[in-house]
Amino acid sequence: MKVNVFKIAQNAPDDLSGLQDLIARQQLDPRHIAAILGKTEGNGCVNDFTRGFAVSTLKGYLQSLIGSELADQIVFVMSGGTEGCLSPHISIFTRQTDDLSGEKTKVGLVLGVIHTRDFAVEEIGTMAMVQVVAQGVKDAMATAHLVAPDVHFVQVKCPLITAADRSASAVTQDSYKSMAYSRAASALGVALALGEVQQDELTDADICTNHSLYSSVASTSAGVELKNCEILVLGNSLESHSDCVIGHSVMEHALDIDAVERAIASLPLATAGIINVFCKAEADPSGKILGRRHTMMDDSDINHTRMARAVVGAAIASVVKDPMIYVSGGSEHQGPVGGGPLAIIAKTAA
Amino acid sequence: MKVNVFKIAQNAPDDLSGLQDLIARQQLDPRHIAAILGKTEGNGCVNDFTRGFAVSTLKGYLQSLIGSELADQIVFVMSGGTEGCLSPHISIFTRQTDDLSGEKTKVGLVLGVIHTRDFAVEEIGTMAMVQVVAQGVKDAMATAHLVAPDVHFVQVKCPLITAADRSASAVTQDSYKSMAYSRAASALGVALALGEVQQDELTDADICTNHSLYSSVASTSAGVELKNCEILVLGNSLESHSDCVIGHSVMEHALDIDAVERAIASLPLATAGIINVFCKAEADPSGKILGRRHTMMDDSDINHTRMARAVVGAAIASVVKDPMIYVSGGSEHQGPVGGGPLAIIAKTAA
Amino acid sequence: MKVNVFKIAQNAPDDLSGLQDLIARQQLDPRHIAAILGKTEGNGCVNDFTRGFAVSTLKGYLQSLIGSELADQIVFVMSGGTEGCLSPHISIFTRQTDDLSGEKTKVGLVLGVIHTRDFAVEEIGTMAMVQVVAQGVKDAMATAHLVAPDVHFVQVKCPLITAADRSASAVTQDSYKSMAYSRAASALGVALALGEVQQDELTDADICTNHSLYSSVASTSAGVELKNCEILVLGNSLESHSDCVIGHSVMEHALDIDAVERAIASLPLATAGIINVFCKAEADPSGKILGRRHTMMDDSDINHTRMARAVVGAAIASVVKDPMIYVSGGSEHQGPVGGGPLAIIAKTAA
Amino acid sequence: MKVNVFKIAQNAPDDLSGLQDLIARQQLDPRHIAAILGKTEGNGCVNDFTRGFAVSTLKGYLQSLIGSELADQIVFVMSGGTEGCLSPHISIFTRQTDDLSGEKTKVGLVLGVIHTRDFAVEEIGTMAMVQVVAQGVKDAMATAHLVAPDVHFVQVKCPLITAADRSASAVTQDSYKSMAYSRAASALGVALALGEVQQDELTDADICTNHSLYSSVASTSAGVELKNCEILVLGNSLESHSDCVIGHSVMEHALDIDAVERAIASLPLATAGIINVFCKAEADPSGKILGRRHTMMDDSDINHTRMARAVVGAAIASVVKDPMIYVSGGSEHQGPVGGGPLAIIAKTAA
Repeated sequence: MKVNVFKIAQNAPDDLSGLQDLIARQQLDPRHIAAILGKTEGNGCVNDFTRGFAVSTLKGYLQSLIGSELADQIVFVMSGGTEGCLSPHISIFTRQTDDLSGEKTKVGLVLGVIHTRDFAVEEIGTMAMVQVVAQGVKDAMATAHLVAPDVHFVQVKCPLITAADRSASAVTQDSYKSMAYSRAASALGVALALGEVQQDELTDADICTNHSLYSSVASTSAGVELKNCEILVLGNSLESHSDCVIGHSVMEHALDIDAVERAIASLPLATAGIINVFCKAEADPSGKILGRRHTMMDDSDINHTRMARAVVGAAIASVVKDPMIYVSGGSEHQGPVGGGPLAIIAKTAA
Repeated sequence: MKVNVFKIAQNAPDDLSGLQDLIARQQLDPRHIAAILGKTEGNGCVNDFTRGFAVSTLKGYLQSLIGSELADQIVFVMSGGTEGCLSPHISIFTRQTDDLSGEKTKVGLVLGVIHTRDFAVEEIGTMAMVQVVAQGVKDAMATAHLVAPDVHFVQVKCPLITAADRSASAVTQDSYKSMAYSRAASALGVALALGEVQQDELTDADICTNHSLYSSVASTSAGVELKNCEILVLGNSLESHSDCVIGHSVMEHALDIDAVERAIASLPLATAGIINVFCKAEADPSGKILGRRHTMMDDSDINHTRMARAVVGAAIASVVKDPMIYVSGGSEHQGPVGGGPLAIIAKTAA
Repeated sequence: MKVNVFKIAQNAPDDLSGLQDLIARQQLDPRHIAAILGKTEGNGCVNDFTRGFAVSTLKGYLQSLIGSELADQIVFVMSGGTEGCLSPHISIFTRQTDDLSGEKTKVGLVLGVIHTRDFAVEEIGTMAMVQVVAQGVKDAMATAHLVAPDVHFVQVKCPLITAADRSASAVTQDSYKSMAYSRAASALGVALALGEVQQDELTDADICTNHSLYSSVASTSAGVELKNCEILVLGNSLESHSDCVIGHSVMEHALDIDAVERAIASLPLATAGIINVFCKAEADPSGKILGRRHTMMDDSDINHTRMARAVVGAAIASVVKDPMIYVSGGSEHQGPVGGGPLAIIAKTAA
Repeated sequence: MKVNVFKIAQNAPDDLSGLQDLIARQQLDPRHIAAILGKTEGNGCVNDFTRGFAVSTLKGYLQSLIGSELADQIVFVMSGGTEGCLSPHISIFTRQTDDLSGEKTKVGLVLGVIHTRDFAVEEIGTMAMVQVVAQGVKDAMATAHLVAPDVHFVQVKCPLITAADRSASAVTQDSYKSMAYSRAASALGVALALGEVQQDELTDADICTNHSLYSSVASTSAGVELKNCEILVLGNSLESHSDCVIGHSVMEHALDIDAVERAIASLPLATAGIINVFCKAEADPSGKILGRRHTMMDDSDINHTRMARAVVGAAIASVVKDPMIYVSGGSEHQGPVGGGPLAIIAKTAA
């Protein structure tokens, strides 16, 4: 498997120009696209339609190029919110499996993708969702021949509950809060699949509550634009043909910039430049960062997930000298409380 | 002159507990307070009443302790907006001039403060304001026996124009924009006083427009709670008795964390720990940071000064490992476009 | 008892000019002030410090005039949020009991006020709070010799739970949501005191859930600026000396402007002009108004209580031709779902 | 010409279900669609992509049904912002000209539509735009055989200037403010076409400044999703085959609900129910409504156009008992200062 990663700036949620240009210059074959992971410039909360607009535009364009059957297999994960310095963009993951006979395998990036079934409103944020996501992650790993220790990042796009969906037996009646429950159950699904959490220590009551249970590689993002989960698993394999590698670490808090160094240290090879950083952000629910009070939890004008993205985005961007990175908000069961996983994909040195 | 600096956390704009405690433990003599420089947790824009609430509470308390005459000489500068990780706090600057005969002078922090006259609405953001601020800065420097090269930070609190104040001959009819004009004219006043800009190269038309003219040490903040300007000048002097020193540098852009190192390098002595960092933040009006598009200028939900504080606050806090720092938004004519001055006050090594 | 009501515009939360003017012209004796009920221009949510700023300024001023003992007996209720056309103001309720021997009693406004004890964080939003508020309402009614059928409006100011207060055994960990619980328990306390709800049909589980239980005259507002409840009961009595009367009705939904007419019809006398309207607003949690979808519940940029005030404020103001009215957001157990109580105080015809 | 108007609820900006249903039931022939005028649920300001998402979805769908050539002639006007009670929806205007030989003409609704050329950034908000819009309105009127006195509503969708577009010679550097300039020039174009303003009394300096110049029927709305103007002219004609009629009035201020009655009185026939109300909303720039201070101009958390829509939407909806109406924000040169035009389309009595 030959995986490649293209980072493309977007001037608006429906901006296709960068992708069109790569295809026109034959640097990217649209039939190879396995997943598109983007940051769009909406509020990243309930009424963020920039995610759906981006997906709809990309999918429409790709359907016209490669047909519906192939396009429908692509995993589209749009994470809303480019607060502060963050720069809207998409990362396109291609996977080529044919025409590789002549190339030698080497240590490098591999990926697996999967779409789960749709969820009933009552399943969102519950053990039912945890189980389905866990099986999905395992299936995606299998397609990439990946085992748990070699997995460095698992992205899940998951649904939420709007006012229109509301059900008395849903886990919450609050649409913004439903995003947290959906992210939480999805993250615990990843943790279960990877053995970070054991089946018998996990119940519905732990979801959004027992923060000692978490995944160190899960990144989950909720959106109004889907009813199922879409999963992208990334890891290194000895059987790769990719010129990219991936590593990861865990931010202990929102200002833990040393996590960048630790993630770089985890890369299996010498590298020649970072392609993208993928990380999670959360306003520490204790109300404190490094012992100092922050005001994000009590701010009724700006939701705390928005500010958390601005904080982690600025801290990490200032270290890697690039604000075009992927920072997603709300890290329930994704890394320790107040922190979150951080993955780096880099080009291998020639 | 013996200057001391106390950084005190606030749990709310009207929280006096930290100050009361210092006074009760006789670590701070309220009669010595020259200036109080704070970050309060409002939106930092037009309708931010947390600044006024903090000033009113502090002033009322100090009047009851030291009488109105002394309390009215204190400069109160509250800068609104603790977006992201920033932690609400006040820095109290004391200045003791008596009982120092026995102590040897040394290189250290000195300060001067001044209140200007009130401004007419039509003067805000114009050369009239520039001139009055310039004279105020010179007068404050004189009281501290400071010359321009030894000045490292000049904080100005300045007024704005609300809908109620509006005048056809005012520089703008937009209250949020009037904050920028007021900050700009105040900053150019500092630049003029320090010789960073020359009288004959400066006209009304340059204000908020000609960004090649700027001060490297000005920090100006507008608020609805005053009609005049209040000025605090900080520098190092050989005639000081303070155990603190100050240094500064200029951030070239909002993610320029190397400015911290440069400011530390500018300190005149070896030091034993940072007390506080004071810096300015601005969303680059070009719409780009490090060549990447940001979305702050076109965000109609959150004003760009708010996001700029979140960005610079997170970047600098992640380096100094302390989110309780002073970051003020809107850096018109304060450092280069998209950047801003950064000052550090540190304790001298024993 | 001679009750009078003064409606005074405020140009800012700390604007005392209107009150100072009335006192200077001897139209209002500050020793007679029983309650001050205001609308301030903050966000009306958790981090709204305009309420505290207004109370602190008013209380400080009145203490200087009438002493702490008298000033501390005044009930201060500041409701944040003047969204849309609403105009910041205070209503001052005076109560004179001396020097009335020569005047004949007539049908008119009477009032009772009370401060409850402080609440523990764990009590907020629970039956413990319901019981204390119910007893407080009964006590306040007793001081006014009011019986339930003659009560037309009961205002309660109640506390909330901030991130700093958070307790694992509190009713919620979400500060914005804690406002709803506190308002709900306070409203059910009123309903219990007035016999609108029976003791044995009420449990902790009903609070914020069983919306068939409600008061038709309760108006409750939460704020960070107090730890207890402050209660103002208003009604008509045959033993009054007031030139004002009060009536009320219930808005069935947020656009139910006919409620104004019904409230006027409920006034016991012919009147000569409305002094103020007091009403509650809520975004219908069903997500629909008059069968049409609204977007307030899923709006992650603006909290639904803010928009609800804008809606009800505009609807009622357009009928009474005055945007200086009291509209408070969040009507849990205050009127039917999506609606709320509406009271009118009018001057009696000469 | 037989014009029909369909009001269709939308559950999201990309919800086509209502339209698909009408087409499936053969109540609406997509080849007859002349214009679609909608309210989408974004912020209605610069970074509102719900407008573009709605247009892109509708256009894609209609292109697949009727081909690109026909679909490109449709005028799409999406106005963002359904604050408060407003309910997202589209109004579809169909125009049938064939197969009418057997039907008698009668007084009724007619329409004309036109797309202008694209505007250079430097033209937006200037006399160049005024002239092009004026000519466009005249051309659209001609296609409908309408003369000025019979025109009751002219909707213009116009472009804005984003940070990316910015030009030193543009009328403003502020993207939110560019919306006002674009709306203003478009409205004056309508006024010029209809003779409400004379060519020789109009200069660049009047735009956004001289509010004595205005149109009583213009409704203009800016958006990031187009570079030209799209114009829809509505009026009554004796040569109509429509079962609808239109009337209009002018709201003198944001709470002027009597304007509904005046607009109904202006209808040329007895009617059998309102289909939709179309009106403009503005926060009075004087800072007062009916003599009372409002806080919309100084609110740095919520833009005043958002609150203005909430106010006018609630006031008008409470009278017509339907929150699914078209209220668009920012009424520069559209009606008197603080007010705006209001049009009603009603079904004629059988």
